[in-house]
Amino acid sequence: MALNVTQKLIKDHLVSGEMKPGEEIGLKIDQTLTQDATGTMVMLELEAMGLNYAKTEASAQYVDHNLIQVDSKNPDDHLFLQSATRRFGLYYSRPGNGVSHPVHMQRLAKPGKTLLGSDSHTCANGCMGMLAMGAGGIDVAMAIAGEPFYVKMPKVWGIKLTGELPEWVGAKDVILELLRRYDVKGGVGTVIEYYGPGLKSLDAMDRHVIANMGAELGATGTVFPSDGEIKRFLKDQGREDDWMKLVADRGADYDLHEEINLSEIEPMVAKPSSPGNVVPVKEIAGEPIYQSYLGSSANPGFRDFAIASEIVKGKHIADGVSFDINPTSRQMLMDLVKEGHIANLLQSGARLHQAGCNGCIGMGQAPATGRNSLRTTPRNFPGRSGTKEDSVFLCGPETAAASALTGKITDPRTLNMKYPKVKNPKNSTIDDQLLDKPLSPEDAKNVELYKGPNIASIPEMDVLPDELTLPILLKMGDNISTDEILAGGARVLPFRSNLPEISKFTFEIIDDTYYQRGMATRNKGGHAVVGGFNYGQGSSREHAALAPRYLGLRVALVKDFARIHWQNLVNFGVLPLTFASEEDYNKLEQGDVLQFKDLRDKIKQSNEFSVRVEDKNVDIKVKHALSPRQIDIMLQGGLINWVKNRQNSTI
Amino acid sequence: MALNVTQKLIKDHLVSGEMKPGEEIGLKIDQTLTQDATGTMVMLELEAMGLNYAKTEASAQYVDHNLIQVDSKNPDDHLFLQSATRRFGLYYSRPGNGVSHPVHMQRLAKPGKTLLGSDSHTCANGCMGMLAMGAGGIDVAMAIAGEPFYVKMPKVWGIKLTGELPEWVGAKDVILELLRRYDVKGGVGTVIEYYGPGLKSLDAMDRHVIANMGAELGATGTVFPSDGEIKRFLKDQGREDDWMKLVADRGADYDLHEEINLSEIEPMVAKPSSPGNVVPVKEIAGEPIYQSYLGSSANPGFRDFAIASEIVKGKHIADGVSFDINPTSRQMLMDLVKEGHIANLLQSGARLHQAGCNGCIGMGQAPATGRNSLRTTPRNFPGRSGTKEDSVFLCGPETAAASALTGKITDPRTLNMKYPKVKNPKNSTIDDQLLDKPLSPEDAKNVELYKGPNIASIPEMDVLPDELTLPILLKMGDNISTDEILAGGARVLPFRSNLPEISKFTFEIIDDTYYQRGMATRNKGGHAVVGGFNYGQGSSREHAALAPRYLGLRVALVKDFARIHWQNLVNFGVLPLTFASEEDYNKLEQGDVLQFKDLRDKIKQSNEFSVRVEDKNVDIKVKHALSPRQIDIMLQGGLINWVKNRQNSTI
Repeated sequence: MALNVTQKLIKDHLVSGEMKPGEEIGLKIDQTLTQDATGTMVMLELEAMGLNYAKTEASAQYVDHNLIQVDSKNPDDHLFLQSATRRFGLYYSRPGNGVSHPVHMQRLAKPGKTLLGSDSHTCANGCMGMLAMGAGGIDVAMAIAGEPFYVKMPKVWGIKLTGELPEWVGAKDVILELLRRYDVKGGVGTVIEYYGPGLKSLDAMDRHVIANMGAELGATGTVFPSDGEIKRFLKDQGREDDWMKLVADRGADYDLHEEINLSEIEPMVAKPSSPGNVVPVKEIAGEPIYQSYLGSSANPGFRDFAIASEIVKGKHIADGVSFDINPTSRQMLMDLVKEGHIANLLQSGARLHQAGCNGCIGMGQAPATGRNSLRTTPRNFPGRSGTKEDSVFLCGPETAAASALTGKITDPRTLNMKYPKVKNPKNSTIDDQLLDKPLSPEDAKNVELYKGPNIASIPEMDVLPDELTLPILLKMGDNISTDEILAGGARVLPFRSNLPEISKFTFEIIDDTYYQRGMATRNKGGHAVVGGFNYGQGSSREHAALAPRYLGLRVALVKDFARIHWQNLVNFGVLPLTFASEEDYNKLEQGDVLQFKDLRDKIKQSNEFSVRVEDKNVDIKVKHALSPRQIDIMLQGGLINWVKNRQNSTI
Repeated sequence: MALNVTQKLIKDHLVSGEMKPGEEIGLKIDQTLTQDATGTMVMLELEAMGLNYAKTEASAQYVDHNLIQVDSKNPDDHLFLQSATRRFGLYYSRPGNGVSHPVHMQRLAKPGKTLLGSDSHTCANGCMGMLAMGAGGIDVAMAIAGEPFYVKMPKVWGIKLTGELPEWVGAKDVILELLRRYDVKGGVGTVIEYYGPGLKSLDAMDRHVIANMGAELGATGTVFPSDGEIKRFLKDQGREDDWMKLVADRGADYDLHEEINLSEIEPMVAKPSSPGNVVPVKEIAGEPIYQSYLGSSANPGFRDFAIASEIVKGKHIADGVSFDINPTSRQMLMDLVKEGHIANLLQSGARLHQAGCNGCIGMGQAPATGRNSLRTTPRNFPGRSGTKEDSVFLCGPETAAASALTGKITDPRTLNMKYPKVKNPKNSTIDDQLLDKPLSPEDAKNVELYKGPNIASIPEMDVLPDELTLPILLKMGDNISTDEILAGGARVLPFRSNLPEISKFTFEIIDDTYYQRGMATRNKGGHAVVGGFNYGQGSSREHAALAPRYLGLRVALVKDFARIHWQNLVNFGVLPLTFASEEDYNKLEQGDVLQFKDLRDKIKQSNEFSVRVEDKNVDIKVKHALSPRQIDIMLQGGLINWVKNRQNSTI
């Protein structure tokens, strides 16, 4: 049978299940990626599992999120991560080396391999002919320990690219166009696979841009073929030997179809406060801006900075605009310096920041209250910038640079200048100076973990009770993101290795009384929350499940879930339920009490059962989508208990 | 009579008093400098005074401290400052333009002028043949409003420089040598004036380094002559017309004398946790480091980064070292890029940060718990780095770069390499793109102040009561710095425009119960604190007086005061007293209650009077050093009341 690239990747790594969309499959994981905001917990989990040495082909821990060191918490976490990578046989990418996704792509990604990462944008490396997926930290810990990754077999959504990008239009505009068409849950349950003649005009880093924001479509992954362009990219990185050809078989088909004529794309922008809120730039041109921001894994490439440099070269940015430049990898920064682009950007009036995720994750560069910020980052969920009432627009570097010059949102095609063609440097800098290689197993076993005072163990969790009486502490609407469940940002991220502390920020953006109300239920049977569609979209942070669980959350009842958050809830023993009938959402109010009886038997026996709403005298039907393996995890109170019990039973 | 440079500057600006050391003199102020951490309060004070337009020749507001924007507070403050500079006729140096002192030196400093700044390192611009002094914010506000600056006539301490700096030794080692000889209060009550043949080998930026850390000696100012080198510097900045010659008269003498033979200086380092704790580097060579840090106003020059770049060029920094590069001005960063030095530094493994004060003021780059940080910054007071239990060493860039390579504190002379001579660029970049000029008075008067939600007015303060019964809430030792009274750093600085909020951090490093204990006295008569020598050394932040005052502090009784903090206490109505007999310090304990009677009359009538220690049945003699003008201010409850009353009485 003719297979597409995604099917080939899955088939090559299938260890359990059938390749039928919707069925749970188990996949062998070749590579993993963790970043510092999620990685401290992963390392604690590896320790709890008693791992001796990583069983993957390559696992890398990046320090790119928590770079603002206002006290000892972040630097202590960096030292912990360094010691853990030495102990467990992982790569360690030091602070300053850059954002995980582009660095991984440059130095470690390999066509034909699977990559699992505790960062929702892990899909970016799908640009390399890999099956690259974001997951919760504990899933990645399991993968490092050699366990398969379990996921529902996705549908493969083939997107045929034709034509060629016009001048002033970049890869970012392509993925924004797709978000315009399908919004933030348009890709749920799918792997998006790009093919067709349009690929010719997209280099590897352009494909990274498109693959990266597959996360914003809710997709399980994004896959590009490994073709001659990937060969060129790997050769440029001194890794030609890592290349293998991986393209769809002639006659391969897809479960879903779409087509994009690149020639017809124009500059696009996502308005506040969702990446799916996309319009052509020209529709909102003239809106004043406070900030123009370059960087992040959504526009990480040399060309993304170089094109902006060429646009602003010899000119000055508008008065009152903060033009923030955030290089994405140290290698690329060195090339941008060498090729004169940093000089151009500085001369125009830019602020140059260190290489890392920075403002994309709310780690600096927050905009002033109520002022418009225009960014090349992937997300603009409310408050993610660090400013509670923010107004963030997403665009490509051409639009960001043009707007920095004019001080208002500007379609770059309206600039009075010739389109500057940008070339990648002849020989890109290759420099692994800040990417420490794994120790040998012999050296690794003698390494001791360094634990600073901010690192706290994960408290024990109880099994799923048979009866639950749960007040609904929050009723929320659609598209609640993990940023709203548990914010990122410089205030919160330093507590990623300290569950009791970080839980204080849970749902704070939505309702700052939640923490206290939750705590009150913690040892009194717990509570539930109710949500709408696409609950838990956005970042893969498992803390968004762990922290509410710590505060007593036992059930999340919603219209539907974003994939990774759903998985995280299961992993930490929070029962994820959906309404059998969506209208029942309207029957529930905050303060209502849900009564579950014979729960353990019910979830084993059926995917659908009834729940009593106390006082209202009604029953509503709810569903779960747990596999038998996941039911077992849920009954035991989560994956940590499950792993521990398995270890005990095998002694 | 033959005058030295300091005497000429004072004579030219004297508006009241006599030039006798110890007498209060009033000086006309030509220029002012404010930074964002102190400037928001200054602008609120200008507003409270009803200022129409700045009466100085040039006043500049720099945004260099609060560059980490983790939420809307800092960027809102930036917008407030921008609006205030437009309203009041000031220069506005935008975020990203660099640290106030080097930028002011490059773009605005003029030989022969006085400069008052709400930053203790304002003295750095003494390198330009100016009388440049740090002061509390409200003193600067008064100067902007055209009022004289009142200060005790200093002794002039002539330091003759002979010889020439050896290879591997820089200006920083000279000022560290002086701190080794005289410690952190060796310069109190003096202006340090450098002269002699050794000046030839120190360029303008070298002199900046030496002048800057006059603050660490406790000096009122540091003065260098305006000679041919200053002419060269101004010409390089396109400001040759701003030059005037200003050197000491033949036969001029000094009140105090010292001599430094530059040829005999060797690399020096200040150990934790005082800039006065200086030893030769070779004495502690081999001590492992976690961090090597370049930047700040204490080593701001092109050559300070270029020499480090040449030392690490083509080599790699040691494993596990964070090599943090903090450019000090945008102009210099552009030259460092152009001349290849940024490329060298990056290649070696450095992390490049934005231009600004950054980690020097605890705004990022905090070291890990208990790890050694080696920095070219001016201060290493406990906790200033952001890490509570820090271990910060101060040195010059040669030592910092050498140590980055080896991973331990290293005398750069022991590196196996030729000393790399560094030249300034032929034509330095001149770029005022981020330095907004003042509006005209006509345009200025129509500007409205922008006040974000974090900006709070200063609460009203009462007059000095005639009777006070004050429990001693804290008894402290010697050399308590304003960092310990009210920390800087990213946690605290964003509240600089919000007194009720920032006061929560008062004395937190010394005793975290102080805030609550202070608040309890706030409306119940207040409290006192007791300290040792050099109380209030360090930064000029007036919040270190304002915040305890807000919590009820009425009297600070110590062995002696650092000049600026003493002035700040007066300005905000806290009575600064010293022990008439230092041994009486030993008679007092925390919890003792001081009883003051007929206080208003007593401070008017005498510089010395008795205070009753309740329960202990003893009286102790205390002194004040207030001038008649200051007594008047004190009786009225501080300078804000004094200005208000004067305005009312002139209507």
